[in-house]
Amino acid sequence: MNSSLSQILKRIQPLDEASMASAMKRQDELTKPRGSLGVLEELSVKLAGICRSPSPVLKNRAVVVMAADHGVAVEGVSAYPQRVTRQMVLNFLNGGAAINVFASQAGARVAVVDMGVIGGFEPHPMLCCKTIDSGTKNMAVGPAMSRQQAIDSLEAGIAVAEAELSRGMDVVGTGDMGIGNTTAASAICAAITGKTAVEVTGRGTGIADWQMAHKIEVINRALTVNRPDGADAIDVLSKVGGFEIGGLAGVMLAAAANNIPVVIDGFISGAAALLAVKLAPLCREYLIASHLSVEPGHRIMLDWLGLTPLLNLNLRLGEGTGAALGIWLSGTAAGVLSEMCTFGDAGVSDKDGGA
Amino acid sequence: MNSSLSQILKRIQPLDEASMASAMKRQDELTKPRGSLGVLEELSVKLAGICRSPSPVLKNRAVVVMAADHGVAVEGVSAYPQRVTRQMVLNFLNGGAAINVFASQAGARVAVVDMGVIGGFEPHPMLCCKTIDSGTKNMAVGPAMSRQQAIDSLEAGIAVAEAELSRGMDVVGTGDMGIGNTTAASAICAAITGKTAVEVTGRGTGIADWQMAHKIEVINRALTVNRPDGADAIDVLSKVGGFEIGGLAGVMLAAAANNIPVVIDGFISGAAALLAVKLAPLCREYLIASHLSVEPGHRIMLDWLGLTPLLNLNLRLGEGTGAALGIWLSGTAAGVLSEMCTFGDAGVSDKDGGA
Repeated sequence: MNSSLSQILKRIQPLDEASMASAMKRQDELTKPRGSLGVLEELSVKLAGICRSPSPVLKNRAVVVMAADHGVAVEGVSAYPQRVTRQMVLNFLNGGAAINVFASQAGARVAVVDMGVIGGFEPHPMLCCKTIDSGTKNMAVGPAMSRQQAIDSLEAGIAVAEAELSRGMDVVGTGDMGIGNTTAASAICAAITGKTAVEVTGRGTGIADWQMAHKIEVINRALTVNRPDGADAIDVLSKVGGFEIGGLAGVMLAAAANNIPVVIDGFISGAAALLAVKLAPLCREYLIASHLSVEPGHRIMLDWLGLTPLLNLNLRLGEGTGAALGIWLSGTAAGVLSEMCTFGDAGVSDKDGGA
Repeated sequence: MNSSLSQILKRIQPLDEASMASAMKRQDELTKPRGSLGVLEELSVKLAGICRSPSPVLKNRAVVVMAADHGVAVEGVSAYPQRVTRQMVLNFLNGGAAINVFASQAGARVAVVDMGVIGGFEPHPMLCCKTIDSGTKNMAVGPAMSRQQAIDSLEAGIAVAEAELSRGMDVVGTGDMGIGNTTAASAICAAITGKTAVEVTGRGTGIADWQMAHKIEVINRALTVNRPDGADAIDVLSKVGGFEIGGLAGVMLAAAANNIPVVIDGFISGAAALLAVKLAPLCREYLIASHLSVEPGHRIMLDWLGLTPLLNLNLRLGEGTGAALGIWLSGTAAGVLSEMCTFGDAGVSDKDGGA
């Protein structure tokens, strides 16, 4: 294992209990019935623990969208042709995609990363090139990538997170683009959680019934041919993963090591989270699950991760769209701690009738 | 019935089918798998129908928070003393309450309305005075207000909505403040939906078990003493309602008559929605349910209204906090229609492999 990855893994600490206790105490002093903001109060306390501050500020917001191609696309597992990966990255750079709208509404910048898109790109201020290779190999016939490429993709993610941190980043959302990547995410989910391909496979961008049976068969073939070791995240990533999935796991690990909350998106980000948490179990505490995807394997992932999604809006787009919604909710939850008055400050009578 | 209310009721039209069809068509042309934004796509189509535009713009956003006192508070149905109503209004005006934080995050202004708070207020730029009376009477011993006061509160709500419209308002959220008002909302819910007090009553701001039994008994007494006619919304409002609840129903009706989406908050706004929809069934189509409250009667209300809540975050605060979240989600849903590129514009291949 390369030193940069191993150093990051060692740096991840448990959440700060003192900040969480202070935030919990403050929630009880604010001018509202105790507990009346439900999930958002719990979220604010978690954010306090992550940021190691009783009053976390989520001002600088970024969604990191990582893109790569997947060799398994040749098996016909997606409803869309492979060239859509590259076309959609150009769409992100031109501001015409859903993530552009969602991130803008959430007050977040979009950082697009080419982790291995076939065809490559001209330089662009929103784009960072961390190309590992021109797409993975077809995992249905052999490993998607070498073990070194798996490590490289994790480290590229760490480098991206650190570059974004140097630009100022209080919270990060994760997003993805890659035709064929729900097939890889399903295989990762099966390898890590021990569930079957049938249980973890969904329709991705919207395949028909006959394609669904084929997709499950392809995932089973990839698992049989490669025999990924579910106890070894890097083995799983190299055999049935994707460059963007490894990169997103790296972003999660680096964010956790730097006390930055990570709002994860849907199924692909979930696969990256499985890998990140397998590599560093404490990373889990830094993850905020934005939403429950339509993909059936997503609930299995979130259960394994022990995370409860904030939203359930039948989303299945990816790109970080759900993460952008979660960033905004996190900003609102944090705002409660830093901007609301206490009963004492506001001269409002508390439950006991005081003031 | 006063002419202003009757005129508003007559002006409410069904949603615009042509705009909805255009929005639906556009959703299918945008650069994302069809249907992949789930609930937000459905919401965008509803917004198009409400605003009578295939590309609705939700730029000017307001949360109208109506406050009033409740005579039934003397029965000891709340965890907080009655003076908290007035104190919390002052907190809204000073910017220290949860709704201030939530509205600010959602890009919405807060318009506070005194519908009948004991003690009254000095003039304030954020405050509109529409005082019907210094709180309602105790509904456990007789009608909460006269029939004329019920009509006056509805018309005051209409006037408030029209004043906000003249300041520019593309979407409105509803919020409330009033110690004792979950008792009134429960009674309205029972009267309109035919459910029992036990089924529609919850802990409000957080009462103990023994208070809960007492609250149910008070609601039953109010229903027995007053015999509200569930077929007559004004009768229900006058006998077991509140000035802020009538006012919010008026806001909903006026917004619907002016093709403005109304994002309703939790249990109190739900009671107002029951009244508004009873008065004008078409008003229902203009309502967006932001969240499912912890109050058990809220699900009964939403089922009766035929609305599915966007969020389920265990909120039970009121003030319009959930509505602010829903306004932001609505703005994001509308942004998809107006800001995203189509497959054709962006040069992205569609599912059939074209482009």
